[in-house]
Amino acid sequence: MCIDADRLWDTLLKLARIGAYVDARTGLSGVNRLALTDADADGRRQVMAWFGEAGLEVRVDRVGNVIGRRAGRFDHLAPVMSGSHIDSVPTGGAFDGALGVIGALEVVRSLNDAGVVTRRPIEIAFFTDEEGCRFGTDMLGSAVACGRLPLDVALDLTDKHGLRMGDELARIGFQGEAEERLTPRHAYVEVHIEQGPVLAAAEMDLGVVSGVQGISWWELTVRGRSAHAGTTPMSLRRDPGVAVARLHLALDAMARSGRFGPEMRATMGRYDAHPGLVNVVPSRVICTVDLRNPDDDQMARAEAAFAEEVATIERDLQVTIEREQTARTDRVPFAPVVQAIIARHMDALGLRHATLLSGAGHDAQELAAVCPTAMIFVPGLHEGISHNPREMSTPAACARGVEVLYRTLVELAEEG
Amino acid sequence: MCIDADRLWDTLLKLARIGAYVDARTGLSGVNRLALTDADADGRRQVMAWFGEAGLEVRVDRVGNVIGRRAGRFDHLAPVMSGSHIDSVPTGGAFDGALGVIGALEVVRSLNDAGVVTRRPIEIAFFTDEEGCRFGTDMLGSAVACGRLPLDVALDLTDKHGLRMGDELARIGFQGEAEERLTPRHAYVEVHIEQGPVLAAAEMDLGVVSGVQGISWWELTVRGRSAHAGTTPMSLRRDPGVAVARLHLALDAMARSGRFGPEMRATMGRYDAHPGLVNVVPSRVICTVDLRNPDDDQMARAEAAFAEEVATIERDLQVTIEREQTARTDRVPFAPVVQAIIARHMDALGLRHATLLSGAGHDAQELAAVCPTAMIFVPGLHEGISHNPREMSTPAACARGVEVLYRTLVELAEEG
Repeated sequence: MCIDADRLWDTLLKLARIGAYVDARTGLSGVNRLALTDADADGRRQVMAWFGEAGLEVRVDRVGNVIGRRAGRFDHLAPVMSGSHIDSVPTGGAFDGALGVIGALEVVRSLNDAGVVTRRPIEIAFFTDEEGCRFGTDMLGSAVACGRLPLDVALDLTDKHGLRMGDELARIGFQGEAEERLTPRHAYVEVHIEQGPVLAAAEMDLGVVSGVQGISWWELTVRGRSAHAGTTPMSLRRDPGVAVARLHLALDAMARSGRFGPEMRATMGRYDAHPGLVNVVPSRVICTVDLRNPDDDQMARAEAAFAEEVATIERDLQVTIEREQTARTDRVPFAPVVQAIIARHMDALGLRHATLLSGAGHDAQELAAVCPTAMIFVPGLHEGISHNPREMSTPAACARGVEVLYRTLVELAEEG
Repeated sequence: MCIDADRLWDTLLKLARIGAYVDARTGLSGVNRLALTDADADGRRQVMAWFGEAGLEVRVDRVGNVIGRRAGRFDHLAPVMSGSHIDSVPTGGAFDGALGVIGALEVVRSLNDAGVVTRRPIEIAFFTDEEGCRFGTDMLGSAVACGRLPLDVALDLTDKHGLRMGDELARIGFQGEAEERLTPRHAYVEVHIEQGPVLAAAEMDLGVVSGVQGISWWELTVRGRSAHAGTTPMSLRRDPGVAVARLHLALDAMARSGRFGPEMRATMGRYDAHPGLVNVVPSRVICTVDLRNPDDDQMARAEAAFAEEVATIERDLQVTIEREQTARTDRVPFAPVVQAIIARHMDALGLRHATLLSGAGHDAQELAAVCPTAMIFVPGLHEGISHNPREMSTPAACARGVEVLYRTLVELAEEG
């Protein structure tokens, strides 16, 4: 093996201690490095220090992305890039994002140990707020770097407490001065845990990711009429919570029906009733909807069916439903040429691998706009649970993924 | 008229300024005097001061109930009592509870103005945390005073921040030393806004309340399995939010079906998903259920149907549902003899009145355990909306209700 599996695992666990918490119910240790919090800042400083110790030239751009550069023999050539993110959901685990960043760092450390200087420069990065949990837009830093989102729009986003993204970035000391827009890179490869059950169920060692399914996020404000739970006859109610319940079941049934393909997914992850009291019919409920589909036409049909359901419920229950789209990406196909290189190295290592589409969004889908891109998936334990303290992979699986990353990056960095 | 309608209205509005807030969306002025907060304490001190200025001998009991006593000609006789509460839901209005307390104060002020001394003493009171929004048990102070709830159980209740009721009572300076258990009173009469649409729809001036319907409150913890919204196939999910949505629609349909009588009511006023993120299937959802029924047998059947629905959903969706009953009262019938006196005074004043059962819980239902009790309902505007900044009544309607209260209390206080 070209990489040091123990050092990789050890560094992953060190990073997991930053923002660590113990889940009161299960006793498991989770990670909370919500973007641009103090814990995220601590993680950023640690990883930057590691980047520096590995001899990288480190820059922070104006949206807080941190990029470490390793010079090549022909240093004017477009770099090969790798990375991911170190922010987490508030109830996250040790691998999501971190494996891609620490894996890329391990590649650089191993190149240093071996005294290899590649033809092209290599850049490794962690991007700001990939999760999107805080400011409502996922892949925030990479979306700005790759041109999907203007810088000022990103900086002006606010969290649920009204705090501005740009102010929080400055507060933690990560509003850098480097240009945020990436010029075309030679290629981008990201290693990431699968966050799903497919590879483990098929007894695969690794996955080659052929793209990312389409994502459609919505925030809904459902307004009815507040009323006293004891005195208001059922016939006089306009309960926004009943509307949300009906919509929730309708979306769940839609996703299970097969009408939008076998991989349609629909989730309502958040719902807040106002005022939220046992004996008051709420005046309004705010909820979120997350739709996923690997097929753009099916997704468009699912979105139309969702809009129709909303209109029907508004009419039936005499409520109003405002819908705001908070994220929307079409399916992103990855570069077959990069997938082929990844698969060849897996074969050479005797690893069983499958090609699959990612169900989750990743920074790689933004990078795909500026260069040939693909991803390597490492299977997780516990049916691939992620965004949870139970998120777990094995040292061997992580090492396999990063070994393939090493070989793939070196091959790409030697290309003319 | 025996009472001063302007003084009554003016005092009501003065009290409404304590804990006042402006609803950001509607611009309406609401009241937030959640029990044992600083705003509640400010309201308590103001009303105590008014009690003192009216010449009452004021005592605070060990659960924070405040009682003002006006001596009678035969001062050893059991007093006639009136009152209500001044705490509010966090998004309340100016009338719920306040009208009963300020109305009773207006009766005392008018007796003072007229130089009337009644045969029996008169006591007016405001009871601690009638709403139950903070510590999860409604009619808390009156329930302790009338023997339904032991004092130490009440003091040991905690709010959602883990703050203990007894500590909060001490913090705001209202843990008094007077005995909290009420010896039998001669009678109790409470005036209150209707909080419903019945009287206005029937074009009635006032209502005579014949009792309070049964109340059954529950807090449910629904546990499933957290999962990534993008990667977890629908078939592998155990989403507690889908279970809550199904239960919500089932309860709504039950209440509307007529199977549990025409006045069955079911409300789910609060639901919190954990972790509550757009792209995470929740691991658990906490929600509340409020059931009401004027018929005890129908309520028991409704509770059984609710339990059955819960078991079915647990089985179908592979979730677990823990149910904790947070409040439970049977229908409370009020004393026909007190209702008859109230109705006679309404007739004498030429007021149109109807007899109705209360849909909401009231301190009077606790007092009914220690003496003959009844209530006077004053209709509200806007279909009787309550627990909301739109809660509203008119000066004329409030004055009518308090005039009848005056005459009823005087008649009862002259009884042998």
